[in-house]
Amino acid sequence: MLHEECGVFGIAGNRDAARLTYLGLYALQHRGQESAGIVTWNGEAAYQHKEMGLVNRVFSDEAIFDKLPGHVAIGHVRYSTTGQSKLANAQPIVVRFRGGTLGAAHNGTLVDSERVRGMLEAQGAIFRTTTDTETILHLVARAYARRPAGTVDEIPAILNEALAGIEGAYSLVMMIDGRLVAVRDPRGYRPLCFGKIKSGGWAVASESCALDIVDAELEREIAPGEIVVLNGSGPEFHRLDSAGGPRSFCIFEYIYFSRPDSFIGGVSVDHVRRNLGRNLAREHPAKADIVISVPDSSNAAAMGYSEASGIPLENGLIRNHYIGRTFIHPKQSLRDLNVRIKYNPVADTLAGRSVVVVDDSIVRGTTSQKLMRMIRDAGAREVHLRVASPPIRFPCFYGIDTPTRGELIASVKEVPEIAKFIGVDSLGYLSFDGLLASAPPPKANYCVACFDGSYPHECVMKAGVTGAGGRDSE
Amino acid sequence: MLHEECGVFGIAGNRDAARLTYLGLYALQHRGQESAGIVTWNGEAAYQHKEMGLVNRVFSDEAIFDKLPGHVAIGHVRYSTTGQSKLANAQPIVVRFRGGTLGAAHNGTLVDSERVRGMLEAQGAIFRTTTDTETILHLVARAYARRPAGTVDEIPAILNEALAGIEGAYSLVMMIDGRLVAVRDPRGYRPLCFGKIKSGGWAVASESCALDIVDAELEREIAPGEIVVLNGSGPEFHRLDSAGGPRSFCIFEYIYFSRPDSFIGGVSVDHVRRNLGRNLAREHPAKADIVISVPDSSNAAAMGYSEASGIPLENGLIRNHYIGRTFIHPKQSLRDLNVRIKYNPVADTLAGRSVVVVDDSIVRGTTSQKLMRMIRDAGAREVHLRVASPPIRFPCFYGIDTPTRGELIASVKEVPEIAKFIGVDSLGYLSFDGLLASAPPPKANYCVACFDGSYPHECVMKAGVTGAGGRDSE
Amino acid sequence: MLHEECGVFGIAGNRDAARLTYLGLYALQHRGQESAGIVTWNGEAAYQHKEMGLVNRVFSDEAIFDKLPGHVAIGHVRYSTTGQSKLANAQPIVVRFRGGTLGAAHNGTLVDSERVRGMLEAQGAIFRTTTDTETILHLVARAYARRPAGTVDEIPAILNEALAGIEGAYSLVMMIDGRLVAVRDPRGYRPLCFGKIKSGGWAVASESCALDIVDAELEREIAPGEIVVLNGSGPEFHRLDSAGGPRSFCIFEYIYFSRPDSFIGGVSVDHVRRNLGRNLAREHPAKADIVISVPDSSNAAAMGYSEASGIPLENGLIRNHYIGRTFIHPKQSLRDLNVRIKYNPVADTLAGRSVVVVDDSIVRGTTSQKLMRMIRDAGAREVHLRVASPPIRFPCFYGIDTPTRGELIASVKEVPEIAKFIGVDSLGYLSFDGLLASAPPPKANYCVACFDGSYPHECVMKAGVTGAGGRDSE
Amino acid sequence: MLHEECGVFGIAGNRDAARLTYLGLYALQHRGQESAGIVTWNGEAAYQHKEMGLVNRVFSDEAIFDKLPGHVAIGHVRYSTTGQSKLANAQPIVVRFRGGTLGAAHNGTLVDSERVRGMLEAQGAIFRTTTDTETILHLVARAYARRPAGTVDEIPAILNEALAGIEGAYSLVMMIDGRLVAVRDPRGYRPLCFGKIKSGGWAVASESCALDIVDAELEREIAPGEIVVLNGSGPEFHRLDSAGGPRSFCIFEYIYFSRPDSFIGGVSVDHVRRNLGRNLAREHPAKADIVISVPDSSNAAAMGYSEASGIPLENGLIRNHYIGRTFIHPKQSLRDLNVRIKYNPVADTLAGRSVVVVDDSIVRGTTSQKLMRMIRDAGAREVHLRVASPPIRFPCFYGIDTPTRGELIASVKEVPEIAKFIGVDSLGYLSFDGLLASAPPPKANYCVACFDGSYPHECVMKAGVTGAGGRDSE
Repeated sequence: MLHEECGVFGIAGNRDAARLTYLGLYALQHRGQESAGIVTWNGEAAYQHKEMGLVNRVFSDEAIFDKLPGHVAIGHVRYSTTGQSKLANAQPIVVRFRGGTLGAAHNGTLVDSERVRGMLEAQGAIFRTTTDTETILHLVARAYARRPAGTVDEIPAILNEALAGIEGAYSLVMMIDGRLVAVRDPRGYRPLCFGKIKSGGWAVASESCALDIVDAELEREIAPGEIVVLNGSGPEFHRLDSAGGPRSFCIFEYIYFSRPDSFIGGVSVDHVRRNLGRNLAREHPAKADIVISVPDSSNAAAMGYSEASGIPLENGLIRNHYIGRTFIHPKQSLRDLNVRIKYNPVADTLAGRSVVVVDDSIVRGTTSQKLMRMIRDAGAREVHLRVASPPIRFPCFYGIDTPTRGELIASVKEVPEIAKFIGVDSLGYLSFDGLLASAPPPKANYCVACFDGSYPHECVMKAGVTGAGGRDSE
Repeated sequence: MLHEECGVFGIAGNRDAARLTYLGLYALQHRGQESAGIVTWNGEAAYQHKEMGLVNRVFSDEAIFDKLPGHVAIGHVRYSTTGQSKLANAQPIVVRFRGGTLGAAHNGTLVDSERVRGMLEAQGAIFRTTTDTETILHLVARAYARRPAGTVDEIPAILNEALAGIEGAYSLVMMIDGRLVAVRDPRGYRPLCFGKIKSGGWAVASESCALDIVDAELEREIAPGEIVVLNGSGPEFHRLDSAGGPRSFCIFEYIYFSRPDSFIGGVSVDHVRRNLGRNLAREHPAKADIVISVPDSSNAAAMGYSEASGIPLENGLIRNHYIGRTFIHPKQSLRDLNVRIKYNPVADTLAGRSVVVVDDSIVRGTTSQKLMRMIRDAGAREVHLRVASPPIRFPCFYGIDTPTRGELIASVKEVPEIAKFIGVDSLGYLSFDGLLASAPPPKANYCVACFDGSYPHECVMKAGVTGAGGRDSE
Repeated sequence: MLHEECGVFGIAGNRDAARLTYLGLYALQHRGQESAGIVTWNGEAAYQHKEMGLVNRVFSDEAIFDKLPGHVAIGHVRYSTTGQSKLANAQPIVVRFRGGTLGAAHNGTLVDSERVRGMLEAQGAIFRTTTDTETILHLVARAYARRPAGTVDEIPAILNEALAGIEGAYSLVMMIDGRLVAVRDPRGYRPLCFGKIKSGGWAVASESCALDIVDAELEREIAPGEIVVLNGSGPEFHRLDSAGGPRSFCIFEYIYFSRPDSFIGGVSVDHVRRNLGRNLAREHPAKADIVISVPDSSNAAAMGYSEASGIPLENGLIRNHYIGRTFIHPKQSLRDLNVRIKYNPVADTLAGRSVVVVDDSIVRGTTSQKLMRMIRDAGAREVHLRVASPPIRFPCFYGIDTPTRGELIASVKEVPEIAKFIGVDSLGYLSFDGLLASAPPPKANYCVACFDGSYPHECVMKAGVTGAGGRDSE
Repeated sequence: MLHEECGVFGIAGNRDAARLTYLGLYALQHRGQESAGIVTWNGEAAYQHKEMGLVNRVFSDEAIFDKLPGHVAIGHVRYSTTGQSKLANAQPIVVRFRGGTLGAAHNGTLVDSERVRGMLEAQGAIFRTTTDTETILHLVARAYARRPAGTVDEIPAILNEALAGIEGAYSLVMMIDGRLVAVRDPRGYRPLCFGKIKSGGWAVASESCALDIVDAELEREIAPGEIVVLNGSGPEFHRLDSAGGPRSFCIFEYIYFSRPDSFIGGVSVDHVRRNLGRNLAREHPAKADIVISVPDSSNAAAMGYSEASGIPLENGLIRNHYIGRTFIHPKQSLRDLNVRIKYNPVADTLAGRSVVVVDDSIVRGTTSQKLMRMIRDAGAREVHLRVASPPIRFPCFYGIDTPTRGELIASVKEVPEIAKFIGVDSLGYLSFDGLLASAPPPKANYCVACFDGSYPHECVMKAGVTGAGGRDSE
């Protein structure tokens, strides 16, 4: 399973800013389950509450909201693979600086952060976290310090200057001296959109599903390289100088990360996934009795496959949704337990049947192996695995937690070998063209580096192709 | 939403008894989310761990299992509507008695428990909980006390005597001086089954999905009125004297409570639900563009409806599975928030479409009203609600948390009025015959009192028909 | 160190019953640090809050008191040596019984509880705890059941009947169908007193220091064998039939357990301890430069020793009061760490001095050994240990947590050997007569079994003399 | 009650560094009860554990120490009056900087920190806390950045440069790229000492009582303006350029803050307090029956008073040591509850007596008022309050949490008025000369600004004399 690493959210101009942000983060929970946090600003001071855990654990008491006053709020949900002093890395991060109070919540990964940190340290900077967010806060504070005091109104110019030195993926929601500011990197790797709240004010979110829950109408996505400053008086739009070049939207947001009810590029993610399934059926037909999905992420693709192939859809696997990050795997030798606790087959649906299993993607192949074995043990006569994305051959350096190149099964095995390893009667991956044909055009706007190694930045090109990966990122 | 009130599980003859019970309870989590507990017996003493919360919160540390030694274990997950001193009511309950140590986990509700408690109190009994489980422990201890000391081998005779005085629903998993004992009431209201664990020993569970997770093969369901004593040497089968009469299996286990992958009556619950959907399509066709489900409980019925009607199935609602019991509803005026935090529409699927919405049942009608409004706000042109069960007109007294009769919308309104209240273009409930035709015969074996008021016990007949309900139960 | 095992408290007729009980328990914290609990009654139902931990941790939130309504409350602090499922053993215990609601908090230990439990089990009783309190609740409920229903006003007669079958130590605070009832066993082992609250109503407490904190005036101690029923209308006084025989007040309450500011027998505990020190100085003079105390329990005795001997008192040891039950002893080889974390010497007071150290008692001798070594390491030239009680030679069976007889150093060694083991230049224990002369007469009223083995009950005589001990008790 | 605001501790060259630091912090608990933390360094990385609460709550699990590996550790206990995001302010603070890893624990308050922070912000610095510690970390990191990379060996020169710009009180324990460094400000406001651990390595501590607990021998106090670098190979001694000027040791460390068993200036704090009491008796004799102490802080002074006056010492007040920061004051009208929960009179000691009460100091006077009323209510015939320090008339700006000038009773009332307000028959404060005569000479070495307003720094002189106070400090 791949992991998206963050979700960001912000509110300006609504007296329930903290409560709405809580709801927004709850809707973005799938983007990060490790920690959650909200920072608010009430015109005088910043208030924050951050903890490890799911949104509804971190904000488990109505009294918390009473301690988060103000009409402006930013929030963050985080997933991270790395260890020590985790709470310190939780976001949003808020600091005092020359311009007053500065907060930031960040989704994405900078590709040159070590160089930038080294440069900052050489200037005397101190770092309390290993996050790119802190690096960005340093850059913004220094851009302010290079100007005369009291130039807070020049936010766009200052951000332009601060972000000029960094490259990579960033969808940022910031609170700069009480103003809500959203910025998306010039290539637009990660999604970011904003909307108007019916009860008043504005909301910024990683995905539109988080606008829905606060009853905000999606205005539009924030463009790559765009800066949006949100005040009570309405949004102002600015551009980074570096905007206007090639785009690199992560196509995996359509395949797996984003929620199906979110709109990206004017279409719901669910519809793109239906297309993935339809194209998969056309490219890799199967003689089978039934189509089943690996729930829930592959439900739409399985529907599309069933529709295009005419093979009836069935519930072949039931997913237990109660699993959480705290699940203890008892030390004992139950075969395939880590798959078994998540999925259970419906035996009388599978028994004696030739089954098409639709899954969204394959990373290491070990989970697929166990899952297919479980399906076969439940009585399936034939198992035909159909994957709604091309083989993943390269690690991601822009905010997805991928294993190193050597652990990616498609990087070290050809498709027939993978089929043998997983133990299926046939295996079909959606083609690269089939993938791009499923999503809104133009095709050139997508980052597909995990499939073909064509990293947008030269500096990571070499690392990715030669096989490093799994950096600590945000 | 209705709530099932308990799940029970037990292990005999496996050195990982506590860990397997943890997995079994995790698979039964849908039957109760309020508290979880395990009691083990290691030949010398009983050990227990019980807490409020989900199974993976209560057992969040591997070290807990080191404090639950033994080859025998019983476990329980509980849902309860009532309040004070909740942890005291958590199960299993374990006591010292004349025969040594006695533990019990119970699913169901006794219909005459107040009379029995009064009788026991008149004999000097003290009660620390409001559970039927404690009542049963008293009865078993007293049956032992009426015999000479050391007659522990007469378990079946003693249970027969102890349970002779009670009526109602009970699927019991007990630990009597180190022996695992399962008992199901003579009418068999609640499910109970057992199986052989591949790695050794025996498992008893409310549903077969919990046998799957511990790699146990379902032997068979425990028959109404049957007593199964499980030792290392294998199961012994006995019968209550009261066994052999009419049966009353709760048909709502098929409609809503049990997991789709569980087998009851030789068929998966998923298959019965497909039948419900097919029959619903035949009884209440609709001219519509798409069929959508209220996920996840109505997924199979929606598939059946789509299949039988030929109307294509779509994902119209996305469910957020991160919601937990601790979710704080912020005090603010977001319309339909309690529905919105659970479901979100896929707008480009619904927009301009005539939609068949398949739901499993309607209780008060208020949730349906909000949900249909949300679907309509998302752009649906027409909304046709199809319900995969008949109108619920009577409260349950056998273990389901139903509101009082007056709160059941079908008890106070006719179908056209309900349609108007909910705000749909058409409304169709599955017929009583359509329901019974969907489940394995014979029809007479089911309790359908919530639909027609034909309570199996006379004592509750009057209460149910005149409208009381919502007793504190187990 | 010996441990007292419980403190009890109760309020009747004050609308702040729970809050006052909290304060009362806080003042009695020295009598038990393991768990704390309060049960209230508001005329309709009982409410409770019990947890492991110190009073100010268990009641760490004002909101808890809002859930403990009523004008009647009973409370308990507990210390226990035994293990499993501790919370279940926390008190007060509250049950439903024939007369309604019955709660009890108990200080003391029954000497024949196994026989009584066996008898109750033979009648079908079930036990959820290993406490004597539950045994007493069973007895009371059964006494009620032997009478016609509705005879709740006969509380004294019923208690008389219920308690007729038990022997040993019990200072009980009960809540019987809303009435506050205090009972003290006929020998009066443990203290129990009551007073009038200035703001209204009545309070019962193990010690008078707990009356002080709620601004209640000590009326008098409850007499051995007395039953006090407290209503809004004032106290009613009754007697157990077994009252009037010999008394056995635990003299260790004066030596160590009770707080110095509590009044017992008309005199403050502090004054008795001054007497112990004065008599100790007369019996065991020393040629020394200074007198120091082992703080805080020996402060008064050290003052008395200094006063009677004319040797000046100094602060030779400083006690760290932050130690709690959760203190982790790091695994490492710091000599005498368990003494060192509690006490530290004042080096320039001890250096080169001949020192009299006054301690209240010696149990195993190991702590004294480490403490004296620490004093010597700090530079003391001579160390003369003076103990303000006679040698402890026998275990207690009436509510004190003593080790087995073989672990009591005075049971296996003579005084010169003890002096050698501990490593002091001289050792003097207060004589038996010196002890009795220090406390209010008559001498026959005290239990001194731990010194001379003269257990009040024959059944324990043998056990005590032959060496068993350390029973699980309340 | 005044509050000291921090305790610091450090270990170098011992493999049990974290465990020893835990013990050291436990011994320093009286210097700060709000949060506790430890940072270790194992040659490769820094590890930390910090939480709100007492040391034995923060380190309540042996497993925590397994996650704090290394031979070097620094620790901190903190008290703070200020609010929001408290955990963020907990110390030690550890950051990444040009020289690697930099950690610091700080006791004291800078007097010009706002100016320094403003200067740093103008250079682009960001602040995550409101602590002086973070300011110091910035200064050190910037001093490193001004030199060529890899000049880590020049620690003394770099610290000299970094600290040149700040004034005020700082006793610092730092970890600079794995080296333990202790620094004391040139005036030496707060104590700091170091010693050799018998089991190996070196320890630095705020007070010598923390050296005792880890079995370290006090080498000497660190001199004002001294830098001590501790490696496995032994200590190196350096001096700040600003060292050698006038000294300002806080005399309140003798009066109240330090533990009696700590040595400062070659003498135990207990001995100085005895002197305070003796001089107090000479200056303010009383015709009384007994002398009592307000335990525990005034015990030594009361002994000294008794000794010099010949009036016998008694235990007149018993202190409850179980009170913690979490104590809930129930909302109810018990008079003087906040005093009553801490102290209770011994009535038969006070009744009818003329009593000298010795207290260490008076701040606002309200606690004294309640305490004296309680003593009088307990029956004292006459109450003569004797205070072992002069009247506090000015707020502290060097690390003590004092109220504003207007709240200091001695700042707004003369002694006779204070006596009247508190309600005593006579009141005597120790004279300024009597105070200075009690402590080791020379008198000029002490800061006595809280008594006479003679602040060592001009910048605070005005603020102190005109009445501001209560700054947020460390």
